[in-house]
Amino acid sequence: MFGLAGAGVAVAGGAAALGYVAGSSAAEPARPGVVPFRGVHQAGIATPAQDRLHFVALDLTTTDRVAVARLLGRWTGAAERMTQGRETAENGAVGGNPLAPPADTGEALGLPASSLTITVGFGGSFFDKLGLQDQRPPALADLPPFAGDNLDPARSGGDLCIQACADDPQVAVHAVRNMVRAGFGTTSVRWSQLGFGRTSSTSTAQATPRNLFGFKDGTNNLKAEEPDLLDQHVWVQPGDGPEWMTGGSYLVARRIRMHIETWDRTSLQEQEQIVGRSKGEGNPLGKTSEFDQADLAARGPDGTPLVPADAHIRLASAETLNGVRILRRGYNFVDGTDGRGRLDAGLFFIAFVRDPQTQFVPMQRALAQQDPMMEYLQHTGSAMFACPPGLDGSDYWGSALLA
Amino acid sequence: MFGLAGAGVAVAGGAAALGYVAGSSAAEPARPGVVPFRGVHQAGIATPAQDRLHFVALDLTTTDRVAVARLLGRWTGAAERMTQGRETAENGAVGGNPLAPPADTGEALGLPASSLTITVGFGGSFFDKLGLQDQRPPALADLPPFAGDNLDPARSGGDLCIQACADDPQVAVHAVRNMVRAGFGTTSVRWSQLGFGRTSSTSTAQATPRNLFGFKDGTNNLKAEEPDLLDQHVWVQPGDGPEWMTGGSYLVARRIRMHIETWDRTSLQEQEQIVGRSKGEGNPLGKTSEFDQADLAARGPDGTPLVPADAHIRLASAETLNGVRILRRGYNFVDGTDGRGRLDAGLFFIAFVRDPQTQFVPMQRALAQQDPMMEYLQHTGSAMFACPPGLDGSDYWGSALLA
Repeated sequence: MFGLAGAGVAVAGGAAALGYVAGSSAAEPARPGVVPFRGVHQAGIATPAQDRLHFVALDLTTTDRVAVARLLGRWTGAAERMTQGRETAENGAVGGNPLAPPADTGEALGLPASSLTITVGFGGSFFDKLGLQDQRPPALADLPPFAGDNLDPARSGGDLCIQACADDPQVAVHAVRNMVRAGFGTTSVRWSQLGFGRTSSTSTAQATPRNLFGFKDGTNNLKAEEPDLLDQHVWVQPGDGPEWMTGGSYLVARRIRMHIETWDRTSLQEQEQIVGRSKGEGNPLGKTSEFDQADLAARGPDGTPLVPADAHIRLASAETLNGVRILRRGYNFVDGTDGRGRLDAGLFFIAFVRDPQTQFVPMQRALAQQDPMMEYLQHTGSAMFACPPGLDGSDYWGSALLA
Repeated sequence: MFGLAGAGVAVAGGAAALGYVAGSSAAEPARPGVVPFRGVHQAGIATPAQDRLHFVALDLTTTDRVAVARLLGRWTGAAERMTQGRETAENGAVGGNPLAPPADTGEALGLPASSLTITVGFGGSFFDKLGLQDQRPPALADLPPFAGDNLDPARSGGDLCIQACADDPQVAVHAVRNMVRAGFGTTSVRWSQLGFGRTSSTSTAQATPRNLFGFKDGTNNLKAEEPDLLDQHVWVQPGDGPEWMTGGSYLVARRIRMHIETWDRTSLQEQEQIVGRSKGEGNPLGKTSEFDQADLAARGPDGTPLVPADAHIRLASAETLNGVRILRRGYNFVDGTDGRGRLDAGLFFIAFVRDPQTQFVPMQRALAQQDPMMEYLQHTGSAMFACPPGLDGSDYWGSALLA
């Protein structure tokens, strides 16, 4: 077992020995379709949500911290290149020794960067396996069970996660595949999820997309243009927990199967009462435009609230939840068929928060207990990860934790 | 049981009774991103391959031909609207009676047509279930088993198929979902498959995309700009079989799991020898440019063929297969994880041919027996469908077969 004194792993040779060279992206001018890899915060959180997702959860197949640090170094170097539209190595798919396997798998050759972002996080079990319990943030305590949960262990948890978002799914898949490949011998895939359509805007420049209930989703989401609110609700602040997480964020993932066939049999009026918004424009009930502020106190002529007492937008509102807000960044999915003649479709919910215990937990508890929408969905997967802050200079993912 | 004399089902009221109104697309000018729905051939075959796929196979839950004809009529009306970027009905998601379920599920509201095409086909079991055995084309005889097949019945077969292709996956998913919904009581979903990246060009205007082996795929594919070759290899000609199929085509679908982890451990040289092309440019070995014609007779200084005797492009070539050519229109897929730490990834192969028995069968037999690429893949699903010709005037899908 590791002693606590071993928490800081000395890696001989520093960054170079980790198999990656510090990047030059900070010095490069902005290019369209290229999201800067390095910065104060990881990309892929407040970045305007791209259209497609490939998310993978991995398990460590080793307890060797040096091996894990080396992998995170290799991942950093490969990811920095890929987010610039390059291969994992120079001429990675076609150059070098023809008698050796190509360094890059090649399916993204010729494709642009497509706003690729790669975001990495550590699950609670990561700290346990590597003897880093003293560095595990209290905010990363396991989620409690929620009413109605039907979680599949094969779609839940994981020691690490990689969230790859891009406007071209082939680019996102290529990124995950090459990082999974680089992890061979250190990690194995636990589960993965493709998402085809973003379900939230994270920038005021984006139109609000629709989820598979047919409603605009995320109208009231936190936005990249609200840095003060992001500091308050998304980014871990000094003193919140272990120092290595300052500037990071917690990622909560929930695979939410939607019973779309049942939903589709409910009346328009019932759908709108459940959501609390109109289906077409997306205005809060009692208002006329999507971005009108909901008036939760307003009542109709008969005295009933215009936004029903158990409407989704009321239960999930900051007003009802004592100021709680989250940054949603989820995706629609269809995973084939459920074997009972129905599409296995839903929402892969992703949220980034400063503290899941005081933000996600009370919100989900309220929804699980009171939201009539629960009749039309089921949470089938769950995971949570601590995403460290952005990478500066020669940092690699987790270097402040592992080095 | 139906007698043979009942093969032509009289549907009282004709097209109107089938719940759809003949479309006006033929009279409309071409709009960018809108593929004409009606024409001599179904759209989605020679149409330049869109980027995303949602494919679904359905089973009939009835043997009532009239009910099936009515459904095909409803499908035709809804599909014609959706391919124009409209809802399945006027104000389908938000209009009409608020106490009734919306006619359209709504998740494509506000999205453009995105070059949506919807292509429908009938499996062999369709004819058996409906007592139409005399109308079943001989070309639709069940495929023989091939060496190495590992077919999952839950991913194979089906009485009907819907192929929805679009440049926005949400549009393709919306189309399939609404047609599945319209089929409730007449059909149920058997299996479905999402594809995120096209793996073939079907137009000279398109760049050749890459499959998950990292190679350009479909360089030598038939192209929309080659109508004579399409007549020869893709479109069913008068006298080929039952008259109702003239102008149609046969769709062969094979879900091909790729063992990408194993492939990624082979050398660049071995990969290129297996394929018979270079990985970067995609030129046939011994040539320099992608579209150079392969010289299968060329030998190197040591007397060995430049394109190996068992290279994929040799085995699949018209030269080797006595002139056989096919129209490939497949998609890359990643369906999460296989439970053994690997991505469940591969190629959802779709081909359109004039006669599967004389085109697909000999080609697949040769590949299954001789292609070293078989070490790196496995066929896990298989289906074949007779896609009727294009729709004219007041036709609905299959009207020449069922009316």
